[in-house]
Amino acid sequence: MLSPETDAGTAKPAAAWSTSVGLGGGVLRSIHIGELPLEAGGALPSVTMAFECWGTLNEAGDNAVLIQHALTGSTHVSRGDSEEDGWWEGLVGPGEVIDTDKFFVVCANMLGGCYGTTGPSSVAADGRPYGSRFPFVTIRDSVEAEARLADRLGISSWYAVIGGSMGGARALEWAASHPDRVRRCAVVASCAASTAEQIAFAQAQVLAIRQDPNFAGGDYYDGAPPTLGLGLARRIAHITYRSEEEMGGRFGRDAQDGATISHGRLEAPGDSRYKVESYLDHQAHKLVGRFDANSYIAITEALMSHDVARGRGTLEEALAETAGVEFVVAAVNSDRLYFPAQSEELAAALPGQVPVARIDSPIGHDGFLTEVAAVGGLLKESFFRD
Amino acid sequence: MLSPETDAGTAKPAAAWSTSVGLGGGVLRSIHIGELPLEAGGALPSVTMAFECWGTLNEAGDNAVLIQHALTGSTHVSRGDSEEDGWWEGLVGPGEVIDTDKFFVVCANMLGGCYGTTGPSSVAADGRPYGSRFPFVTIRDSVEAEARLADRLGISSWYAVIGGSMGGARALEWAASHPDRVRRCAVVASCAASTAEQIAFAQAQVLAIRQDPNFAGGDYYDGAPPTLGLGLARRIAHITYRSEEEMGGRFGRDAQDGATISHGRLEAPGDSRYKVESYLDHQAHKLVGRFDANSYIAITEALMSHDVARGRGTLEEALAETAGVEFVVAAVNSDRLYFPAQSEELAAALPGQVPVARIDSPIGHDGFLTEVAAVGGLLKESFFRD
Repeated sequence: MLSPETDAGTAKPAAAWSTSVGLGGGVLRSIHIGELPLEAGGALPSVTMAFECWGTLNEAGDNAVLIQHALTGSTHVSRGDSEEDGWWEGLVGPGEVIDTDKFFVVCANMLGGCYGTTGPSSVAADGRPYGSRFPFVTIRDSVEAEARLADRLGISSWYAVIGGSMGGARALEWAASHPDRVRRCAVVASCAASTAEQIAFAQAQVLAIRQDPNFAGGDYYDGAPPTLGLGLARRIAHITYRSEEEMGGRFGRDAQDGATISHGRLEAPGDSRYKVESYLDHQAHKLVGRFDANSYIAITEALMSHDVARGRGTLEEALAETAGVEFVVAAVNSDRLYFPAQSEELAAALPGQVPVARIDSPIGHDGFLTEVAAVGGLLKESFFRD
Repeated sequence: MLSPETDAGTAKPAAAWSTSVGLGGGVLRSIHIGELPLEAGGALPSVTMAFECWGTLNEAGDNAVLIQHALTGSTHVSRGDSEEDGWWEGLVGPGEVIDTDKFFVVCANMLGGCYGTTGPSSVAADGRPYGSRFPFVTIRDSVEAEARLADRLGISSWYAVIGGSMGGARALEWAASHPDRVRRCAVVASCAASTAEQIAFAQAQVLAIRQDPNFAGGDYYDGAPPTLGLGLARRIAHITYRSEEEMGGRFGRDAQDGATISHGRLEAPGDSRYKVESYLDHQAHKLVGRFDANSYIAITEALMSHDVARGRGTLEEALAETAGVEFVVAAVNSDRLYFPAQSEELAAALPGQVPVARIDSPIGHDGFLTEVAAVGGLLKESFFRD
């Protein structure tokens, strides 16, 4: 891994950089980008951006693709040289839709995250984790940090920036903030601005964590973390990620032990679980084991703040500068967190005629993750036809 | 109010009972119904049913209407002689759709509730509140308790049983459990059985309370109640009670102080609130001031258990005995907690041809409460044509 110290200098020529360090795909790396001014005022004094990459940046530095992860996503889009499948496995690799024999693919951990980029669990200048001292950051702040990472990597403009859900918000913000550095932009299962309902569900999640006594105002790193609160936040979120039909079809009213729920619940009150409860327990447990609660709050609040038009006039005005960007906007037909109508609203506000592609999935919002073949097909017929 | 002691005896003749105590409308009353065996096994040793009533039971005892409240509803359907408007104000009264010059209207607090009926906050035989000792009760248990209340009141069969949301579940369970005692049944914005998604959202709410350290396993009556947990449960629930369009139209991304949310949130991180957050805070605050957390859990778990077909074969078989009951099934078109499809499924399983009436409202599930005129119109053209 590149250490912050060795990499804190000026950007190196791209091809030389990527060649010189012999990048293996799918392995976490990090680069120090220095002080980052924040949209809310103030600055983060010393920011490290963590990322993974696959393939090789060409001499012209024009074959780079940025893939943006979702709320609790990591940088691990694809297995690469690692032992672990990525969250969009099969989309990125030699001969795949995003062909790493041709493209240099990057996925950076969002600012405030817990997968290597500076976040609340990072050590501040005084040697202690930021905790409650970590400032409010926005989607726009993360894009600025990612732009500095791109500078360091020698990427002057992206062949494409691609993201789903919060990753879509980040992709869109890239196009609006740096239209000269984004040639293609795919916004999947996302929107131009977080809605009242999305803010409402997000508030419940943030409160679930903050109300956990272990949270200790955010300064819990010396003690037990707020796992119950984070688990509840995940349960709330996960319900919104799935459709009613999907949960009904998979679990119905069945009890975990195979009994009818009446008997299950009635014979052992408090012990017996509906299958859907056990499933949500499992989802909560998995997240708690891999995610920091403060990062969950930081990124959730950043997503609550998402509004590509903030300070830029109307939505159409905010997007007017993106006329040179080729867009793909896609929605999951059964999504009830980022409704297809929000994709339609975004597409209608973009310059030119941008149709909304539909990803058919009964699963709900998470279709952007599970329907890799559909997402791949969409990207292949648009950005990656060759 | 009738005390449990004076009323613990056998049922009195109906008209004599209602006349003798000179019932004023809209005032809380209670009747002791003795020991109640529970569906889960065991029994509640001494149950008091609280209720309000309006109008006068006739000599034949055949003009009684039962209105069933929803999850956090009270017995106070209508102002009557009280100072406070009811939750279906305008529907019940002299000359109203449910004309109290003709009908004797009853609304009973559900078993496990906190509006006077025996629940977790009630004092057990040892002089202390039940708390964690309150047993698991089902919708069916509450209907049995209500049947005993009807016995005491001298009501052999109801002219109509009417309910929305969980009240609809209770109304339906009345028809299935006692088809000979229900002549008409209105099930509004409800379903035949709670779905996986409804159970999932309910689990999150129950956990929010249980994870509040003040909950103390349910035995918090000597200390501070789990208001933060109950407030969070209410926030989660309230989002599901409203449509995305309704929240978007009312609040959008606005900040509470009138600034754009960017400035509001950015200038005072942690202090500034989105309007929708402030709204949900208000909803939480209101409920916490009027509802017991243990009752919230008890009734929510009862609703999770709702399945009119439990132990009765298929849904069609479970409802076959209701052939003599006239049904109204209605759905709110924008309801995304009790989807209209669930009303369709129920109606299709009922004997005979039962159409599903639509209540047009942009508001979502809560339309069953807010669209009193629509509910009234529906009832007037079906059960109360005279």
